[in-house]
Amino acid sequence: MSQGHPEAYGKLLEILREVDDLQRAAAVLSWDQQCYMPPGGASARGEQLATLERVAHERFTRPDIGELLDRLDGWAKGLEQGSAEASLIRVTRREYDRARRVPQDLVHRLSRARTRAFDAWLQAREERRFATFAGPFADLVALEVELTEALGYAETRYDALLDQSEPGVTTRALERLFGRLREVQVPLVQAIAEKPRRPGPEGVVAPAGSEGAIWEMCQSLLRDIGFDFRRGRLDRSVHPFTTMFSVGDVRLTVRPNGLNLHNTVFTVLHEGGHALYNQGIPAEFEGTPLAGGASGGVHESQSRLWENLVGRSREFWEYYLPRARQHFPALAELRPEEAYRLVNAAGPSLIRTDADEVTYNLHIILRFEIERALLDGDLPAAEVPGAWAEKMRAYLGLTPADDLEGALQDIHWAWGGFATFPSYTLGNVISAQLWDAARAAHPEIPDQVRRGDFGTLLGWLREHVHAHGAKFTPDELVQRATGQHLDPEPYLLYLRHKYGELYEL
Amino acid sequence: MSQGHPEAYGKLLEILREVDDLQRAAAVLSWDQQCYMPPGGASARGEQLATLERVAHERFTRPDIGELLDRLDGWAKGLEQGSAEASLIRVTRREYDRARRVPQDLVHRLSRARTRAFDAWLQAREERRFATFAGPFADLVALEVELTEALGYAETRYDALLDQSEPGVTTRALERLFGRLREVQVPLVQAIAEKPRRPGPEGVVAPAGSEGAIWEMCQSLLRDIGFDFRRGRLDRSVHPFTTMFSVGDVRLTVRPNGLNLHNTVFTVLHEGGHALYNQGIPAEFEGTPLAGGASGGVHESQSRLWENLVGRSREFWEYYLPRARQHFPALAELRPEEAYRLVNAAGPSLIRTDADEVTYNLHIILRFEIERALLDGDLPAAEVPGAWAEKMRAYLGLTPADDLEGALQDIHWAWGGFATFPSYTLGNVISAQLWDAARAAHPEIPDQVRRGDFGTLLGWLREHVHAHGAKFTPDELVQRATGQHLDPEPYLLYLRHKYGELYEL
Repeated sequence: MSQGHPEAYGKLLEILREVDDLQRAAAVLSWDQQCYMPPGGASARGEQLATLERVAHERFTRPDIGELLDRLDGWAKGLEQGSAEASLIRVTRREYDRARRVPQDLVHRLSRARTRAFDAWLQAREERRFATFAGPFADLVALEVELTEALGYAETRYDALLDQSEPGVTTRALERLFGRLREVQVPLVQAIAEKPRRPGPEGVVAPAGSEGAIWEMCQSLLRDIGFDFRRGRLDRSVHPFTTMFSVGDVRLTVRPNGLNLHNTVFTVLHEGGHALYNQGIPAEFEGTPLAGGASGGVHESQSRLWENLVGRSREFWEYYLPRARQHFPALAELRPEEAYRLVNAAGPSLIRTDADEVTYNLHIILRFEIERALLDGDLPAAEVPGAWAEKMRAYLGLTPADDLEGALQDIHWAWGGFATFPSYTLGNVISAQLWDAARAAHPEIPDQVRRGDFGTLLGWLREHVHAHGAKFTPDELVQRATGQHLDPEPYLLYLRHKYGELYEL
Repeated sequence: MSQGHPEAYGKLLEILREVDDLQRAAAVLSWDQQCYMPPGGASARGEQLATLERVAHERFTRPDIGELLDRLDGWAKGLEQGSAEASLIRVTRREYDRARRVPQDLVHRLSRARTRAFDAWLQAREERRFATFAGPFADLVALEVELTEALGYAETRYDALLDQSEPGVTTRALERLFGRLREVQVPLVQAIAEKPRRPGPEGVVAPAGSEGAIWEMCQSLLRDIGFDFRRGRLDRSVHPFTTMFSVGDVRLTVRPNGLNLHNTVFTVLHEGGHALYNQGIPAEFEGTPLAGGASGGVHESQSRLWENLVGRSREFWEYYLPRARQHFPALAELRPEEAYRLVNAAGPSLIRTDADEVTYNLHIILRFEIERALLDGDLPAAEVPGAWAEKMRAYLGLTPADDLEGALQDIHWAWGGFATFPSYTLGNVISAQLWDAARAAHPEIPDQVRRGDFGTLLGWLREHVHAHGAKFTPDELVQRATGQHLDPEPYLLYLRHKYGELYEL
């Protein structure tokens, strides 16, 4: 991107590439840690990752970046707003200013507090007892509060953290969004809960010994949706994830012992959605802060779109049932319509990662409300389990048997991942907006899905989402792609229509 | 190691650990590059590796290390010579002084010249024509000469480079050693060449479809010799290698399609020897320059010892033949004595990596002599193929059909790996010295090998070699372990005895 640009722009790119190389190296180490590392490597690997992150952070916050950005100010003003150069300068300025606001000392204290909280969380999970986690967690919350004060915010402390995972999205906007979702989804869940419970895809299991065939199936499904194995690969890890070492090297994982329909087909579609996004980032963004997704929520919109709007559709199962039948005997007698009902079984559950489309957002809203109260000092850390139980009853009508089924289930807080849960819900919301826009532009998409042809859909996502990398905020991106602001109505309409029909509501 | 030490020592360790973390991160990236990376990741990976190496080098050559070393001088003088602290300061001083002598500008020019030479080498191999490589190679040789002048040397330019791969070993000492080896091995090779040629282990192949069973066999052989899979793992790569991400995480590889006896049993024993060395480095050395082998040659002594002195012994094949028979039908009818003869088939060959124990050193001596002449300006790069052919005839009685069978066969020069070939021969020489010393201390070792019990041997190596990490120079280490200086006679005696009997000479 640097031809015919000011010298300062070339210098800026050079420094950003160095920082990016160090961050991508950390991604490789983290991937290996989860996929291949033997237990003996754990403690040194932790040190190596901490060093890479520290060196990258130190390099990124040195004043020369600020000086280069200042020198580029005048030039940048003359650039077209949506150009790669203008976006690069804007995004770099945003991240640089953020990073500079956090004192090195606070970075260190946060890092140590996270390690302690994580260890306590592991211990607390073994004991199934939140109290063991509460002390280190309270310390961590206090430091997160300190962090919000260092970063600064317009209205709420939550804004300070949210601005990192979802640039431009405010707590106030989230509250409005979540209020509307709760209003529609809580009664929808209650109505479904009154109907007889149906078996879901977790119960559809391949026979032992078919690991090799299932692995082939995962790879071929990925290939079908458009994943390019010359520019990425599939591995196994306990917690499925997707990462990116460069625009030409995107890695995703499924569970090592994933023999049920959920762990294979839906995990492949979910992580495959993330991976297709990463593979669609333009090569010219390589080495810059633009070489990633627009936000956690936009990334999640891609995984949700492939997992739910494609993968849980009637059309998909007309195409995929004959293939899935080869490996899952329980599907042998099913017609596509029955398979469609099976993969869309819904109902309240205690664990977020097991939740279906109808209940998922309620799990997120519960966490968002607790996070807000923690940061504002309205809820002491020790009282989280009580607040959890109360909200779980109100939104889903369930009560956790113990803390492992409750506030200890997610790793996020223990790792200091505050204000990241809302991205999941934003992903659901955005996925429906994109799906509607893609089908409006190409009404033939559902018919193509029925034939296992995903090219038109992927092409539309490439052009309207992937090609922009991190150039725009989530709202800007959604506007450009759909002509609308972030809006929960398409998702709610989709839910009511689909589950109204499925459960005869 | 830092309890009760001067403050400067703790600070030094801190910086060394940071440098080490960056270097180990590079090792992870390089391992992935060879084992798992898809083609699309290649160019970005090259950049990431270059950045990690540059950042690590910049950190290591900053003056604060020199200042800390100066401050520690007085304290270090009072330390016991063989203590970890004294060795750490000595080794760090040696590497720091070396690194500081090379101007950053030369580092960059060398790095660029290596990339060009490597690309030309790949092209030249396709054309099987050295001339295509000669130009970039000549440029690289000129820069290597410049490097030797920057580093300084006592007698020959070769000394400057050799001191890096084999600290304390001089060109003069190598010449004496190689002269003696040539004197005995050239006639030995000639005598064997006059005998009928026997089939070797490369021809013993497992049936297609047994990849899974062969993989299990490799893992179980590794386990048998003492490799700890909780602190390491085995993977596949086109060129087998061993690396180390930390004391608790040692990785080795075999060929992805290795279905012959050579690619499995002998590669596992060879890389396994390296890997056992790495797993034997004391955890207290973690993060310092002591957490590695004493030199390339000492590392090679471990791989050669397990591959040749153990793996090509009669005793080993009494233990291993029944196991190998399960996978290699050609072994079904053989008695152990016949298997022993099979795996020790010898004879001159053109390719170093295919060479047997008797001819191997001659391949190295040829390269050493050419490298010396190149650095001294006595041989223009373009004339390497002629010199190669002449020496090949003199030492092995063979003539390469083309340059691919000659001077283009090794990657070393194309990557700028000058003065590293002698380590292979030093490894052979040292392996015999260690083997003799271990058996002198524990005469029961051969009998134990016959039963598949390698514990006593490994225990002796752990104590006398592995436990020292990089504390000593190769000669110091050999002296401490065997009571003798580096000496070719034990290896020559071993060769004459073994092959005299095998070939009735």
